[in-house]
Amino acid sequence: MTKSALQIARAAYQPKLPKALKGSVKAVEGAATQSVADQEAIQKLFPNTYGMPLIKFEEGEAIQLPAMNVGVILSGGQAPGGHNVISGLFDGIKTLNKDNKLYGFILGPGGLVDHNYMELTADIIDEYRNTGGFDIIGSGRTKLETPEQFEKGLEIINKLGIKALVIIGGDDSNTNACVLAEYYAAKNAGVQVIGCPKTIDGDLKNEMIETSFGFDTACKVYSEVIGNIQRDCNSARKYWHFIKLMGRSASHIALECALQVQPNVCIISEEVEAKDMSLDDVVTYIAKIVADRAAQGNNFGTVLIPEGLVEFIPAMKRLIAELNDFLAANAVEFANIKRSRQREYIISKLSKENAEIYASLPEGVARQLSLDRDPHGNVQVSLIETEKLLSEMVGTKLAQWKEEGKYVGKFAAQHHFFGYEGRCAAPSNYDADYCYSLGYTASMLIANGKTGYMSSVRNTTAPAAEWIAGGVPITMMMNMERRHGEMKPVIQKALVKLDGKPFLTFAAKRDQWALNTDYVYPGPIQYFGPTEVCDQPTKTLQLEQAK
Amino acid sequence: MTKSALQIARAAYQPKLPKALKGSVKAVEGAATQSVADQEAIQKLFPNTYGMPLIKFEEGEAIQLPAMNVGVILSGGQAPGGHNVISGLFDGIKTLNKDNKLYGFILGPGGLVDHNYMELTADIIDEYRNTGGFDIIGSGRTKLETPEQFEKGLEIINKLGIKALVIIGGDDSNTNACVLAEYYAAKNAGVQVIGCPKTIDGDLKNEMIETSFGFDTACKVYSEVIGNIQRDCNSARKYWHFIKLMGRSASHIALECALQVQPNVCIISEEVEAKDMSLDDVVTYIAKIVADRAAQGNNFGTVLIPEGLVEFIPAMKRLIAELNDFLAANAVEFANIKRSRQREYIISKLSKENAEIYASLPEGVARQLSLDRDPHGNVQVSLIETEKLLSEMVGTKLAQWKEEGKYVGKFAAQHHFFGYEGRCAAPSNYDADYCYSLGYTASMLIANGKTGYMSSVRNTTAPAAEWIAGGVPITMMMNMERRHGEMKPVIQKALVKLDGKPFLTFAAKRDQWALNTDYVYPGPIQYFGPTEVCDQPTKTLQLEQAK
Repeated sequence: MTKSALQIARAAYQPKLPKALKGSVKAVEGAATQSVADQEAIQKLFPNTYGMPLIKFEEGEAIQLPAMNVGVILSGGQAPGGHNVISGLFDGIKTLNKDNKLYGFILGPGGLVDHNYMELTADIIDEYRNTGGFDIIGSGRTKLETPEQFEKGLEIINKLGIKALVIIGGDDSNTNACVLAEYYAAKNAGVQVIGCPKTIDGDLKNEMIETSFGFDTACKVYSEVIGNIQRDCNSARKYWHFIKLMGRSASHIALECALQVQPNVCIISEEVEAKDMSLDDVVTYIAKIVADRAAQGNNFGTVLIPEGLVEFIPAMKRLIAELNDFLAANAVEFANIKRSRQREYIISKLSKENAEIYASLPEGVARQLSLDRDPHGNVQVSLIETEKLLSEMVGTKLAQWKEEGKYVGKFAAQHHFFGYEGRCAAPSNYDADYCYSLGYTASMLIANGKTGYMSSVRNTTAPAAEWIAGGVPITMMMNMERRHGEMKPVIQKALVKLDGKPFLTFAAKRDQWALNTDYVYPGPIQYFGPTEVCDQPTKTLQLEQAK
Repeated sequence: MTKSALQIARAAYQPKLPKALKGSVKAVEGAATQSVADQEAIQKLFPNTYGMPLIKFEEGEAIQLPAMNVGVILSGGQAPGGHNVISGLFDGIKTLNKDNKLYGFILGPGGLVDHNYMELTADIIDEYRNTGGFDIIGSGRTKLETPEQFEKGLEIINKLGIKALVIIGGDDSNTNACVLAEYYAAKNAGVQVIGCPKTIDGDLKNEMIETSFGFDTACKVYSEVIGNIQRDCNSARKYWHFIKLMGRSASHIALECALQVQPNVCIISEEVEAKDMSLDDVVTYIAKIVADRAAQGNNFGTVLIPEGLVEFIPAMKRLIAELNDFLAANAVEFANIKRSRQREYIISKLSKENAEIYASLPEGVARQLSLDRDPHGNVQVSLIETEKLLSEMVGTKLAQWKEEGKYVGKFAAQHHFFGYEGRCAAPSNYDADYCYSLGYTASMLIANGKTGYMSSVRNTTAPAAEWIAGGVPITMMMNMERRHGEMKPVIQKALVKLDGKPFLTFAAKRDQWALNTDYVYPGPIQYFGPTEVCDQPTKTLQLEQAK
């Protein structure tokens, strides 16, 4: 493996730990907990793992535990810092007993079911400290949901003498971790399950989980390149850059990037939904800013767009629902319509409200909505190039305003979509420390016999020594939600709160950012410089934690 | 202006200078020079600026010069380090005489013609030291070509008492700088013109100009995000990423990024042209690697594609030429063909060779070639999304091989295009030092009464103190080329040399990189860390300069 100079230098970084984890540790139990909603239903589904107390680690007496083996799984999309969770876990169990062993299941939860694993030795761990990616054991999207899977997993767990399993994943993976914990607890299998909060999307957070790991690094990478684009934009002064950012289920990434770079426009899906804005409302909002800037002679700017926007627009959701139903019911007839007449045909068949919206869409998007369907026959909303859809519709609106004498200017657009660029970046100091601490904390939850807990590290806007490490019962974060027509217990997703400080700070500034050119250029993540450059958490976290 | 922590910390960086420039300086003249080709024609066109000697600066005696005013212009696309050229120039002329003044012409060469300018004072300069972008005065693409423009420029030059003009630009802008130098010299206008070599594309280089500024930083930013994508690719193991990189006229950027990240595939346009490869040859080459990796169970990888590829494929050039001619001659008839029959119509009219290629193109690209035309009626090759064209054709080829039992695997692609992400990044230490030195050197060329020279800083793979600063007559880099049907004197573009060390190094490794997963992850540009992380020039330059 050839390594870059930075990879080599960065390998030597020793992530910081909370003070309480630096020596021997004892678990202090807090009050019993309740789920955030639907307490009765959740308690019934998790009789063995419901209502457990919060755990906080403090300095304690050294204890000697017999050797044990631990398994670890990376689940779902990559996020910067996954390797540090694993190295923290490794160092933690080795501190407990040097004969402890760590097994990694390969390519995600499927590795557990298919008995695909490897031992993670010190040599291997050392190759991956402070690196990005999940390539140490790979990740995968197999969902652990069925008793058959749990039993297949138990076979290999027993064979390897594994006492505890750590599942590193997002809200769904942690929900499944808890279901697995409950299953093994119910049958007294002697296997603990601990979760770790991962997702660049930032939508796995609550009172006890301040942030999901990877959000910090990913947002900083996106803000770096957006900042570079803004500097270009402000130098050439001739393009509007429409920049879509990964994250379908919440707009935390777009909001954080907006707070970092101060763009001219940033759309927040949660606000669009709350205000029941139509696609035309969003387009008009952007076009108005383009026109106002043009009136000042500035025919350039930046627009940040969350990937999931279309799915948050209530009217678009209704259109898509009707399209799904209609096309499913009339598949044969539709297949016989000539391509050039399809649009007309669909417009003639939809309800008035939806027909009007459909007719307003650019041809490419309209075609995509009627043609590209997933294996269940549903419209593939994720394929819609929202950044092009919006810029095309803004262009159309401006052309109309120009005819009406309401707009004088030039409008030319460039498009970008950032996602894969940031998911596997080498973790920032924050994520390197946070992830290492999460992994180390997981080892202490295991040593204390806990199951159904998520590793929790809080107070992370303070210096690392003051961070608070502990565990949160996963059931505490759950509520019941409809999934594929059935009510299921799931971890409540954290959307952008419209009354939260990050959004309010953005909302208070955005009109000024829209008209002025107030761009900030964050530059690339720095690992070696002054602390104010290298060690700042996200703006989101700083605002949320500000007293 | 709100500034990021990095912007603030980076402002304090003091760029390094060659030792010879640190005190008083004297100009040592070398031998007289010749243009690289067409000596007689070039000499005739540049009677006053042809054949001048090379200049090298050495430590000298302090001299006192009367105060003078200097003008500066940023021309063409942005490149990291432009602000440092200007701050080096500013510091240089202030060292010569603290009453010297610097004027910036606004939004490119057009600012000279339209008399749009501002004085660049110390306060302004200090705001922009070591920052990316050209926003200090903006840039533009107006070409300085006509005597009318030169005369308009002279009016404001005389009004402001400007003794010398520094034009920071690429090959075309420097060609025009030389034409302007010659014009003012011929009429004894008392105005010197000095050029500085700028372009992220890296195609303005020769024996005396080791590299154009911005190439280092831009390639490092692209390599950072490509590295991140490769780590993702190697973790998820399910996508082929097709990554297009800016640079239409040469493949230096793609080659440098390949040397930095070790991708599975990198196409070099110059090689495609030299080997007379067809589009199908390129597609087959990529598909073969996809199939070979699939045979090892690896259904993922990365492909780097230079933006200008299509224009280097001889057969595509012939197709486009015929299409341009045919559609120009038959515009009215073509306009009456129904959209659904256009493809068929064109195929029926083209020569056999071109009809076959046209028929092999995906529908979207074929339509683009026949419909999207620039104001001169020509096909807009730059609009072709080459990364999607190639991945679609590779997919088609693999599907065919699958039917023939020659390929077993899954092929899913993601697409990226990087350009604006890197053009305005804050300059790397290399570019910060190199640009500052280029600007400082320009001031010394001015002080020594030179005109028609390009600022030259060499030996840049050595520590900055050992760099060699001087000037090169721009005519020395020129040859005659056909432009818009006329023979013109232009600076010879530097394409990737297929017998040069950078390409040979890549060619020797590429088969290994194709099959193995040998990715390197360069990570983000570092400004504060160990020197082996922060101060390395590009691989291209290191290989070219290696003894």
